[in-house]
Amino acid sequence: MRTGIATVCLAGTLREKMQACAVAGFDGIEIFEQDLVTSPLSPEDVRKLAADLGLTLDLYQPFRDFDSVDEDVLGANLRRADAKFRLMSRLGMDTMLLCSNVGTATIDDDGLRAEQLSRLAGLAGDHGVKVAYEALAWGKYVNDYEHAHRLVEAVDHPNLGTCLDSFHILSRDWDTAPIEAFNPEKIFFVQVADAPKLSMDVLSWSRHYRVFPGEGQFDLAKFMGHVVRAGYTGPVSLEVFNDVFRQSDVERTAVDAMRSLIWLEEQSAKWLQANPAPVTGSAAGAPTGVGARRRYPMELATLPRVAEPAGFNFAEVRAGDTAGLETLLSQLGFAFNGHHRTKNVQLWTMGHARVVINEEPAAFGTAATAGAAVPGTAGQTSPTDAAISALGFDVDSPVIAAARAQQLKAPAVPRKSQANEEVFQGFAAPDSTEIFLCQGSPDGTAAWVDEFGEPGFGGPGESGTGLPNPGTGAGAGAVIDHVNLAQPWQHFDEAVLFYTSALALEPQPYAEVASPTGLVRSQVMLTEDRGVRLVLNLAPLLQQEGPADGTGHRRTYQEHVAFAVDDLVATATAARDRGLDFLQIPANYYEDLDARFALDPDFLATLRELNLLYDRDADGEFLHFYTATVGSVFFEMVERRGAYDGYGAPNAPVRHAVQYDHVHQLTRSS
Amino acid sequence: MRTGIATVCLAGTLREKMQACAVAGFDGIEIFEQDLVTSPLSPEDVRKLAADLGLTLDLYQPFRDFDSVDEDVLGANLRRADAKFRLMSRLGMDTMLLCSNVGTATIDDDGLRAEQLSRLAGLAGDHGVKVAYEALAWGKYVNDYEHAHRLVEAVDHPNLGTCLDSFHILSRDWDTAPIEAFNPEKIFFVQVADAPKLSMDVLSWSRHYRVFPGEGQFDLAKFMGHVVRAGYTGPVSLEVFNDVFRQSDVERTAVDAMRSLIWLEEQSAKWLQANPAPVTGSAAGAPTGVGARRRYPMELATLPRVAEPAGFNFAEVRAGDTAGLETLLSQLGFAFNGHHRTKNVQLWTMGHARVVINEEPAAFGTAATAGAAVPGTAGQTSPTDAAISALGFDVDSPVIAAARAQQLKAPAVPRKSQANEEVFQGFAAPDSTEIFLCQGSPDGTAAWVDEFGEPGFGGPGESGTGLPNPGTGAGAGAVIDHVNLAQPWQHFDEAVLFYTSALALEPQPYAEVASPTGLVRSQVMLTEDRGVRLVLNLAPLLQQEGPADGTGHRRTYQEHVAFAVDDLVATATAARDRGLDFLQIPANYYEDLDARFALDPDFLATLRELNLLYDRDADGEFLHFYTATVGSVFFEMVERRGAYDGYGAPNAPVRHAVQYDHVHQLTRSS
Repeated sequence: MRTGIATVCLAGTLREKMQACAVAGFDGIEIFEQDLVTSPLSPEDVRKLAADLGLTLDLYQPFRDFDSVDEDVLGANLRRADAKFRLMSRLGMDTMLLCSNVGTATIDDDGLRAEQLSRLAGLAGDHGVKVAYEALAWGKYVNDYEHAHRLVEAVDHPNLGTCLDSFHILSRDWDTAPIEAFNPEKIFFVQVADAPKLSMDVLSWSRHYRVFPGEGQFDLAKFMGHVVRAGYTGPVSLEVFNDVFRQSDVERTAVDAMRSLIWLEEQSAKWLQANPAPVTGSAAGAPTGVGARRRYPMELATLPRVAEPAGFNFAEVRAGDTAGLETLLSQLGFAFNGHHRTKNVQLWTMGHARVVINEEPAAFGTAATAGAAVPGTAGQTSPTDAAISALGFDVDSPVIAAARAQQLKAPAVPRKSQANEEVFQGFAAPDSTEIFLCQGSPDGTAAWVDEFGEPGFGGPGESGTGLPNPGTGAGAGAVIDHVNLAQPWQHFDEAVLFYTSALALEPQPYAEVASPTGLVRSQVMLTEDRGVRLVLNLAPLLQQEGPADGTGHRRTYQEHVAFAVDDLVATATAARDRGLDFLQIPANYYEDLDARFALDPDFLATLRELNLLYDRDADGEFLHFYTATVGSVFFEMVERRGAYDGYGAPNAPVRHAVQYDHVHQLTRSS
Repeated sequence: MRTGIATVCLAGTLREKMQACAVAGFDGIEIFEQDLVTSPLSPEDVRKLAADLGLTLDLYQPFRDFDSVDEDVLGANLRRADAKFRLMSRLGMDTMLLCSNVGTATIDDDGLRAEQLSRLAGLAGDHGVKVAYEALAWGKYVNDYEHAHRLVEAVDHPNLGTCLDSFHILSRDWDTAPIEAFNPEKIFFVQVADAPKLSMDVLSWSRHYRVFPGEGQFDLAKFMGHVVRAGYTGPVSLEVFNDVFRQSDVERTAVDAMRSLIWLEEQSAKWLQANPAPVTGSAAGAPTGVGARRRYPMELATLPRVAEPAGFNFAEVRAGDTAGLETLLSQLGFAFNGHHRTKNVQLWTMGHARVVINEEPAAFGTAATAGAAVPGTAGQTSPTDAAISALGFDVDSPVIAAARAQQLKAPAVPRKSQANEEVFQGFAAPDSTEIFLCQGSPDGTAAWVDEFGEPGFGGPGESGTGLPNPGTGAGAGAVIDHVNLAQPWQHFDEAVLFYTSALALEPQPYAEVASPTGLVRSQVMLTEDRGVRLVLNLAPLLQQEGPADGTGHRRTYQEHVAFAVDDLVATATAARDRGLDFLQIPANYYEDLDARFALDPDFLATLRELNLLYDRDADGEFLHFYTATVGSVFFEMVERRGAYDGYGAPNAPVRHAVQYDHVHQLTRSS
């Protein structure tokens, strides 16, 4: 599949955009006219730069408001087109995008339109270039891709074809099956964009909220399947207007974009395999017959098999001063399993929940900017503060999973290892969290824990034996239930695609919860069997460090690891007896809980006494509590009763308010 | 008019919100349930805090999903209500907001609904409290305020009334005139919110995009006029769900909110005066007869008369190092009018355009945080860099205008003055720009210029005579055409209301223009005769300094002052001959201009030669050019031909791209 991207997707100057596209590995680009008009590069400069970078210049766009006008206006439009065709010749480009008329169309007559399009095609032919006509979803008279295609067929000129844009088609909920019947020679160009399903006017939706494939809710694999079946072999090019991407680091966004096409290519191949029969009965031009392995003219590359992780292998917290974390974990009932034999890291376990405390300095270099004056967090973050730094996932083949991540352009993270130590395959998530792929074992154990427990370091905690300890009593069945990570605002969509494509985590409908510093957008990502639950939180802006170059974010928003146990009341009681610093839940909360759920008075008293939170829905019940925060990390213990599948979202505002209040009290008293 | 605000409008904890409301001068508040549930304050604490702060607790809200359910669900709902009524007694609150059922309603029967509401009213009566029933715009069966009111009338219970919320009524475009016929004793509460007119689902619109009165597009004065005519005398309370306000400094937002009600009160009184006759024929309960001065039970306070400024009196630029500004102004043709006799400021004039260069240190204390690592601006901002610091407006009575601003809670700015110097009344705009009210004179001169020209300072520039010099030749008719100011993202809506309410500037439909770092939202504010044109730009986030405490922003986004002249080509030619550093316009721009407008070749050559930009519409033509940037300030010279009323918006992306490229070249080479 030939990959492309429109320059309007990206931030920066035309030169910066082109360079980033080349680095990200695109085959070609669409030149958005404004990017050229505002550039000091001459058309000849652009042509040379593209050649030097190995980029083809696939589409000049957009040309607007041409057809369905009276003869006077048409004359001016042809003059304007002539200037652009001459410009294209200087650029060495052969295809121009023509959008259906939105602004100046006054005559609704397909015959007239065909005649006007024919004149434009003739003029294009004189210049040796082609015109790809696209129905905008809000075109005045032409807003349906089949209508645009009928006009192209009626004109029947070699220099006029159609451009199919997934946004304009799927935003209107149009069936994409008829594409299969299109003559592939008349499909001059294909643009793809995904989008969240929003209820708003389609123009605003299109101009601000498009995202890259895999970051929204459109069925793009099916769209592409039909395009491939039609016999189209040209570029598949991203045209994504997104307010955030236009503000983000151009090179990172280009990589995110490229990842989305690599993923879409795989998904399209899968769709074709899963849907062997043409959807429409008589698909002229499409291959006939049925066969899952039938080949189409467009070659779709494959990726290493996706590895849906079975669960979390470990969570790693990095901290300069580890005392606070050690205290919390031991009070929660975690056993200290010793230091690593070669690295300055500790292992703590409860059942199959493993927490690694990493005392090595952070790899990223922006620690010096942490602790800036963020309201509500002043003095709370420093280079030595604790932060979630890595997650290990159990996969059946770490090598296959790592190869896949690599092909998806996930930046590799080297993990120093010595002889006889397990080598983790690792890569960096968009928020800088390191993701490691581990060999899971069916019984939930991990071989690498044997690397811990060497003597010589001594050790804190209540075990301190230097031997692996699976935890005892209430914690024996403990596992990591979910991990909650704050995402930088520029990289939220990128993170969704990253976890979707690399680890087969499926985004669920998102929730918004109130906090004293604004709404928090909470995006749950799940494996199908719920073995991995990852929650991506888009924190309010003031809780994020402001200006940043797109790499090495430090977050002031609090993140956490949640552990599931079988008996939360027993776990909480034991933790209380060990002196755990629970997040203190307001009395008002329990009164409201009683008003809502009419709980048994004894049970309510237990909840109140232990600072437990509670939720209930049709599927089951959820009990949980939070610890105090160390650095920017806290822990949660949960118990799921019945088939409860949520995270206690109604309780999230309580947590946010208490944490905020606590930070503010510290700030005021300091 | 009794003023109120719902705690959900604001950021912070319940205590912080209440304190901010008291400081801003609200009479009372609505307690949003979640703010209480998440608070460590007991209901008794809240009651005492409110009393100490002089706030009444006007409404407990919301109670959801009560009516139109089967008997089992109703029982649980009554139990839930009973708990809340007991809570309200502890709070000392007497009114609860009941929203029409959105989620659990299953039976669409007004008779059943009336019976269920009657039972709730009875229970409320037992507790000595009242219920205000509100039709949500997306209520399942009840989503029309007249429907809610009919149900209240049908129940006819002293403890059941209705709550009118302007958002739920105006978002559905319902006529508000019928309110006049409501029995005022049945209107228990009135909530007001404004909103921009957006085409999106009403729930999302309501939950995220509400703004304070005067910041949106609803006709709230008319709504309030009908409410007043109905005879309502209770609180008028803000309920504004806004993603940005929830993230902003609580005290500033509370003042912004209070300003909106003060302004709405005045606008409502004006509407009543302008619309003396009841709109509906038989308004039972409303005053009868016709009379512009008729008094209504609700007292509406008046404000000092609004002073629409006649024009800009001056623009002030603050700079540590003034050489760059002096060079630009003299090359543009400005005359140096000397230093002020007591202050370290210079005056430069061209015709009636006056620019003050202030060499005094900046008043606000965040200069140390300027120059942070913002991509594209690194090293470009320092405490000594130039920035637009103040604007003077010509008003017929500075004292009246200042008194009005004072009553609208604009923070006063003291202007040090000595004997025989003009005393300016000043206040601070939301972006920290200082606004001064000046005595304009019909001939466009300003008396205070006589304070300049004292000997002893010496002086740069080409005049240097120490005497006022109105400019000569091409610049004799020069005036300040418009000023373009960057706005912090948290205070954009606040700025719109500020200029609307204090200076009668009318917001126009906003534009969005592309820049290499994202879309720039551009909001023009105008006086009716265009004597003042102010452009508020909401810059991309990365061009704003991130975390901030809501005061003392430094901006890295470039701002400018534009001067209008009669003959731009002559002005540009003279400036070029003086060696002006023009913003260099790419050749591609002129080719595109020719393609679009088919300009006369000689004229096009002149544009190209002088780096002039051009726009044309049905009303006229616009020529303009930009200077290079000094600090974060540049200048623009414009010529308006015919009735052209815009700002060359199609050219704005060119300016942004060239400025960005220039900054990047400087960064790369440094």
